[in-house]
Amino acid sequence: MTPKVAVLGAGGWGTALALALLRAGRSEVVLWARREAAAQELRSARENVPYLPGVSLPAGLHITSSLDEAVAGAELALVVTPSVGVPDLLAELPPELPLVLCAKGLGPGGERLSDLARAQGFTRLAVLSGPNHAEEIGRGLPAATVIASDDPALAARVQTLLQSASLRPYTSGDPTGVELGGVLKNVLAVAAGMVDGLRLGDNAKASLLTRGLPEMAHYLAWAGAQPGTLYGLSGLGDLMATASSRHSRNRAAGEALALGEQPEQGGKVVEGLRTARLLHDWGKQHGTELPIIHAVSRVAAGEWTAQQAVGALMDREAKAEA
Amino acid sequence: MTPKVAVLGAGGWGTALALALLRAGRSEVVLWARREAAAQELRSARENVPYLPGVSLPAGLHITSSLDEAVAGAELALVVTPSVGVPDLLAELPPELPLVLCAKGLGPGGERLSDLARAQGFTRLAVLSGPNHAEEIGRGLPAATVIASDDPALAARVQTLLQSASLRPYTSGDPTGVELGGVLKNVLAVAAGMVDGLRLGDNAKASLLTRGLPEMAHYLAWAGAQPGTLYGLSGLGDLMATASSRHSRNRAAGEALALGEQPEQGGKVVEGLRTARLLHDWGKQHGTELPIIHAVSRVAAGEWTAQQAVGALMDREAKAEA
Repeated sequence: MTPKVAVLGAGGWGTALALALLRAGRSEVVLWARREAAAQELRSARENVPYLPGVSLPAGLHITSSLDEAVAGAELALVVTPSVGVPDLLAELPPELPLVLCAKGLGPGGERLSDLARAQGFTRLAVLSGPNHAEEIGRGLPAATVIASDDPALAARVQTLLQSASLRPYTSGDPTGVELGGVLKNVLAVAAGMVDGLRLGDNAKASLLTRGLPEMAHYLAWAGAQPGTLYGLSGLGDLMATASSRHSRNRAAGEALALGEQPEQGGKVVEGLRTARLLHDWGKQHGTELPIIHAVSRVAAGEWTAQQAVGALMDREAKAEA
Repeated sequence: MTPKVAVLGAGGWGTALALALLRAGRSEVVLWARREAAAQELRSARENVPYLPGVSLPAGLHITSSLDEAVAGAELALVVTPSVGVPDLLAELPPELPLVLCAKGLGPGGERLSDLARAQGFTRLAVLSGPNHAEEIGRGLPAATVIASDDPALAARVQTLLQSASLRPYTSGDPTGVELGGVLKNVLAVAAGMVDGLRLGDNAKASLLTRGLPEMAHYLAWAGAQPGTLYGLSGLGDLMATASSRHSRNRAAGEALALGEQPEQGGKVVEGLRTARLLHDWGKQHGTELPIIHAVSRVAAGEWTAQQAVGALMDREAKAEA
């Protein structure tokens, strides 16, 4: 019997992952949309017009707004709602269902999504993260991603279900590093956007990102991540794909800040700004010098202009690289 | 007395470095051009029209085609000719002159420039490398770079002479890693260009670069570089600045190969293609699997199309990330 996989969340990323599973061809796929109107629209248009326009949804993709129907008999579920919506979704799911957390971000109170899931009694958990613009994966362009879990059998199973000629999943035994890489890189995406807004060029942007990664490493080591993970696909890889992207809300927020504009349009939270503040507070508590994170959070708080932040970073005392 | 620094080579990078020294304001700077006609043109136009257009050369910059005049009384010299021209230049210089090697590339026979200098009897050597587009540094946009030497006093001295509000030099005690990072990254720039030529998107490009760096690490470890240097400004930083650059000859060569065009226009050597072959041969000799380098060299040799190379990379057996 063909295994069944539930994809919970019908935004651009959920839709792209459902298509990736179908391309791999090893499972029956059900895509769940919270609102029945959205599910109906997806079914009738066979296209996700608001979130993934121009990509047709094959007839084999089952679409429902019934969570019970989506997860009934499913071997596992991919959780792809916005991160702030994850707690509500978890409360409705059976804790024995294996989950693959695919949303990049923190919960409403700054919690890791995996911690929220564990607190709800879920024990079979994996995270999926990497340089994965939904627009490209939806169109079947080649990409790689990482599936990390403390449960090697679960990671290997998700890898098998997703592997195809257009998606190359790697397994990892470091869910902490993979989950946090996708979150922390948003701070550097904001910084990259500031460089873009100030038109400082490729040298400045590359330098800021390169010097920013070791700042992230301090926090990751404290959180228990493995040191190499940050420089893999879910950290560096995701950062490279995001920092030059016209689609990234974090990069755009940095650009807005540099131009003296409001970074959080329409009341939407910019993950990178929130994460910058969290990391900044952590650095202060632990006496760890994090100059780039410090600069981003001061700009985000309106204490510095982006130009002042760059000046402060250039003006630090001369030092050795390592 | 104000110290004197000679900048040997009046291309875009040499001119930009001369301007960076002047901005730091701690030395008298002499820029040497091999041809007297070029020196005269620079002196009369006060602009490097062919290589760094739109940037004016201040009156304080002394310009000469006499090598004796350039190095007479100089505390040190920056070597910024094209890498294939370095042996001829070295033969004309006094071996007691401290040199900062700033050309990214290998000598005519694939030699490291520092090895060529040592073979000529030079003992006080540093290398300078980083994410440094000459166009941006010439205009005074902010940038960072790395100065590496086995001689900490020399590295610190060059750092002092270059440090300004627009250039932030870091010192390093790993000249091998810094010198080779600037060379090896050209192979990945070619690979990035192939992804651009095939229009495969940001996910594929970020994945290829992220997975390519550990392939470089094998060679660097063998060459005696320190492991972290590859992920610093002279490795990762330079790669990030190059892989998206419209200016990079290596990236453009990869794009040409992807489109089935000739990558080496006008008989000019593309460093990344030559380096790919060297690394490929090294991997075979040492039994080290280097799939991305292998793919680039097969495309460069005309054995694979770029599309076949991507297919081969996506089709490898499923594996763990690390």
